[in-house]
Amino acid sequence: MTGCIFCRIVSGDAPATAVHETDALYAFLDIRPIARGHTLVIPKRHATDLDELDHETGAVIFTLGHRLAKALRRSELGADGANLLLNDGRSAFQTVPHVHLHVVPRRSGDTLAFAKGFLLRRPHEPESTAATIRAGLARLEGERP
Amino acid sequence: MTGCIFCRIVSGDAPATAVHETDALYAFLDIRPIARGHTLVIPKRHATDLDELDHETGAVIFTLGHRLAKALRRSELGADGANLLLNDGRSAFQTVPHVHLHVVPRRSGDTLAFAKGFLLRRPHEPESTAATIRAGLARLEGERP
Repeated sequence: MTGCIFCRIVSGDAPATAVHETDALYAFLDIRPIARGHTLVIPKRHATDLDELDHETGAVIFTLGHRLAKALRRSELGADGANLLLNDGRSAFQTVPHVHLHVVPRRSGDTLAFAKGFLLRRPHEPESTAATIRAGLARLEGERP
Repeated sequence: MTGCIFCRIVSGDAPATAVHETDALYAFLDIRPIARGHTLVIPKRHATDLDELDHETGAVIFTLGHRLAKALRRSELGADGANLLLNDGRSAFQTVPHVHLHVVPRRSGDTLAFAKGFLLRRPHEPESTAATIRAGLARLEGERP
């Protein structure tokens, strides 16, 4: 059994609220969200940092982050923007040594709530939040020609 | 003539210190860097935000960010990490309405310098800094099998 918490989430040995899954990727809610809907996108196959990650997987991680940013705008969360952040390396404040892209939904005028969320980092009804994001992804999918 | 400062940089009507260029992308030093080597990667074709950007271009933007993060580790800047950040939308603190990915080099123990850089945001010898990053990219290129 691996000591990597994100590998254990991928294998089902540690709990997480899933948002989306592909062959290569797993997206789930951050257990200490800065804002409601704060999602992490990770490669299923372990890579400590960008130096260890192949470019193809890096590209699909970001593409899913891009889709999530669009889905959040189409979700009931009322997001009209998002911060996409990848902290690469301990010096860059990477806290879990398995590559992860943060996708944090933002709303106009949320600066104070954002600052508060940054300090508190408390979950907000994870199951309904994840369902809301999945509905946004489905809506985005429906837009394709 | 467009009012978008990043479109003007792409067309050569506004100055910038180039780091790397492809058919679709332009990478140049942030004029108000948080740290020495702080680079922006933008699509040459205007897209205000991720909602307007196609996924293919999003993927290549991130792939170049990924390569830059690796190149910075191989450069004389002494980086051992990087923050990759894309602020999507005004609510997410996007200040220039043309999609851009920040790549900020980090070094172990730089937290205080990073905080100072965040406040001051002063350029550091842009020409030699860009040359240093390009040397890191060339070194990375040389590693390929």
